[in-house]
Amino acid sequence: MAIDPKQTKILLDESEMPTQWYNIVPDLPAPPPPPLHPGTHEPIGPDDLAPLFPMALIMQEVSADRYIDIPSEVLDVYRLWRPSPLYRAHRLEAALDTPAKIFYKYEGVSPAGSHKPNTAVPQAFYNAQEGVTKLTTETGAGQWGTALAFACSLFDIECEVWQVRASYDQKPYRKALIETFGATIHPSPSVLTEAGRQVLAASPDTPGSLGIAISEAVEVAAQDPEIRYALGSVLNHVLMHQTVIGEEALLQLAKVDETPDVIVGCTGGGSNFAGLTFPFLREKMAGKISPTIRAVEPAACPSLTRGTYAYDFGDTAGMTPLMKMHTLGHDFVPDPIHAGGLRYHGMSPLLSHIYDSGLIEAESIPQLECFEAGVQFARTEGIVPAPEPTHALAATVREALKAKESGEETVILTALCGHGLLDMAAYDRFFAGDIVDYDYPEEKVQDALTRLPMVGS
Amino acid sequence: MAIDPKQTKILLDESEMPTQWYNIVPDLPAPPPPPLHPGTHEPIGPDDLAPLFPMALIMQEVSADRYIDIPSEVLDVYRLWRPSPLYRAHRLEAALDTPAKIFYKYEGVSPAGSHKPNTAVPQAFYNAQEGVTKLTTETGAGQWGTALAFACSLFDIECEVWQVRASYDQKPYRKALIETFGATIHPSPSVLTEAGRQVLAASPDTPGSLGIAISEAVEVAAQDPEIRYALGSVLNHVLMHQTVIGEEALLQLAKVDETPDVIVGCTGGGSNFAGLTFPFLREKMAGKISPTIRAVEPAACPSLTRGTYAYDFGDTAGMTPLMKMHTLGHDFVPDPIHAGGLRYHGMSPLLSHIYDSGLIEAESIPQLECFEAGVQFARTEGIVPAPEPTHALAATVREALKAKESGEETVILTALCGHGLLDMAAYDRFFAGDIVDYDYPEEKVQDALTRLPMVGS
Repeated sequence: MAIDPKQTKILLDESEMPTQWYNIVPDLPAPPPPPLHPGTHEPIGPDDLAPLFPMALIMQEVSADRYIDIPSEVLDVYRLWRPSPLYRAHRLEAALDTPAKIFYKYEGVSPAGSHKPNTAVPQAFYNAQEGVTKLTTETGAGQWGTALAFACSLFDIECEVWQVRASYDQKPYRKALIETFGATIHPSPSVLTEAGRQVLAASPDTPGSLGIAISEAVEVAAQDPEIRYALGSVLNHVLMHQTVIGEEALLQLAKVDETPDVIVGCTGGGSNFAGLTFPFLREKMAGKISPTIRAVEPAACPSLTRGTYAYDFGDTAGMTPLMKMHTLGHDFVPDPIHAGGLRYHGMSPLLSHIYDSGLIEAESIPQLECFEAGVQFARTEGIVPAPEPTHALAATVREALKAKESGEETVILTALCGHGLLDMAAYDRFFAGDIVDYDYPEEKVQDALTRLPMVGS
Repeated sequence: MAIDPKQTKILLDESEMPTQWYNIVPDLPAPPPPPLHPGTHEPIGPDDLAPLFPMALIMQEVSADRYIDIPSEVLDVYRLWRPSPLYRAHRLEAALDTPAKIFYKYEGVSPAGSHKPNTAVPQAFYNAQEGVTKLTTETGAGQWGTALAFACSLFDIECEVWQVRASYDQKPYRKALIETFGATIHPSPSVLTEAGRQVLAASPDTPGSLGIAISEAVEVAAQDPEIRYALGSVLNHVLMHQTVIGEEALLQLAKVDETPDVIVGCTGGGSNFAGLTFPFLREKMAGKISPTIRAVEPAACPSLTRGTYAYDFGDTAGMTPLMKMHTLGHDFVPDPIHAGGLRYHGMSPLLSHIYDSGLIEAESIPQLECFEAGVQFARTEGIVPAPEPTHALAATVREALKAKESGEETVILTALCGHGLLDMAAYDRFFAGDIVDYDYPEEKVQDALTRLPMVGS
């Protein structure tokens, strides 16, 4: 069938929804370094993780299978918004006067308004199956907390969320949304946990960080055998759940006979980026396609481009296993940029390993350029992006302008991982001229090195 | 092809998008009464409307054609979100334990998060075509103002919005969103217009009303030949633009072999309800289907169920033509319910005429029952509804529970005309126990009668 040149949305039917998640680990040239026990520094096994996660997720975390079936109960929930649309950004292309073709996979159609329910739903499902009655978690901008609250409401589990103070104050509607889905929410650091009280004693005015909020949620989960903890990014199984994004995008681009030349995605913990790119990376490693694949991070929190690749804790208090990853130091508190979901000191160990293997590139972009791209996108494509994917859009604009200069019909693919309707206070500040860029000077890099835990190797 | 019983979204391709709007007027048993000049009380002609509207829209307002082609420039914008999905509410059905099948047409996928862009886009397009440089308008909850701001940004027209003070204060994110799309916004009543200053002099603490905001926007447009006014509901051409909703829903239900027994939709000015139901009413008048079609309005602002069918002004200051409609009196200021889009003293003259002809039913529901339905919907279907469509959802729940009692497999169709992500402050107040019901006592009905303009007939 002929392709309509004006076609804007490339849709899939529910019958075309992927029925398996893709696990990239067995396809990599070398396996990623194992996580280590924080006390013994020995590689940890499934049992070490059992106080925090249900066994089904732990087995996914260490799985050597390339594909894992998505349970039908999870698929039935995915049907509420999946397959998500792939858009051709005709109007943005016209505004940029570029010969590039820009495609964006839009995850804002989910109940939480982002890609996060793709993993929240299976996490809640597996926990419910194993008799867990309550999940604790952290959230930055609030996308993950919303997603887990929604998922828990479907499987009748309680949900308690610690939200980074800076975002809690900036985005008051998130609290109401998380409560609408039936969960409880606290600003972090809070006086409810030992980890929170310690941070507050040292820095009463701290804006908080994802690392601190993780410590709080982990502490509460570790104390009660009926409570488990859920993480919205970073871990292998979380990244794997997100691969439905890229699998769908592969099918959708095939429907319009396009192959991407460049794929850009924003990275905080890495799950959105991995979800979009791992299926394309599989095809690239198999020699079928050859796109440039690039992670985009905030200049204020540049774990891939400026951090060290070393063993570090996932949280601030040092309660998690040690993971080899690109890190700015587990006690680094990023400046209060509005992309709260990207304010994380580390990067997914799996993604860090892939970056270290030279399979992907990375760049960092300051937030003002990102907001400018976000506003241009809203005024052309109609969707107000969350501050996180404005980083991907700023990178897209850079690529489109490069294509304009070279005259090449570059095919750019990106993920618009969430809308910004609950981040409007940030846009309000942008229009008021209150958004500033933050520097990440060399001293910070050196300082981070001195604070890494000492691990042999 | 067999229909998957678990199918949740019934989608259409862009190629299946309706290419014509449906004008119900020539299909009605009798024509609706004409609008009258406010001074002479004689029927008005196209020229009388020319200071406010472009001629293309005026000709649509009085058209006797059953179908009007949608310009390709408008279709290209519709592609950003149309065709919108029709959902089967499997999880809500299960929670209600009802044999009813519940379908909802979801318009929250649009850039403004509601059905309003369906008419904002053609209105901005026709104005731009006729050389208009700026549009003024009113907005209640903010859905319409957002939609027009978005549409104007696409066709390079300035946009100035007066938002009802009660909503302006309750929903601060709307301001940021409207500004993101490049428009200017003021709370109404404002000191910028004679109409606003008069109201403020008499009632400095007024929560405002759609009637007052219309007066302000009309006043500014009438003073400058390059400025026109745009209305988000009430008028024939606005209702007609919305019929894409119902045309798509007809196709979508046919794809799953279903015929609605009951159609319910919320009504403020009437455009969402008309958009959903007019194509079904056409089929019903042709004897092909026989659904009950029912408008649902707030108990605090019950123009159809408690208002008088008489000639009245569309605005508070008495600047618009006189229209025969169900009205609570043009100077009625509804209680500050959160469904700001339903706080209008009148009802679309066309819809009023159809109601008066006995072709549709109406009911009113108090806001607490609506919020309860909205929260139940969010926790089962994942979408937080705007306060306006919670009225349609409350009516849907009533019908589903009736079906449970009778054991009938009633097919219910409704429109979820917008999401509530910019209305989270209202949900916050609901959980805090701060939402109250408002009474509309018989004295109010009597009082309204005394304030109607005197028109012979």
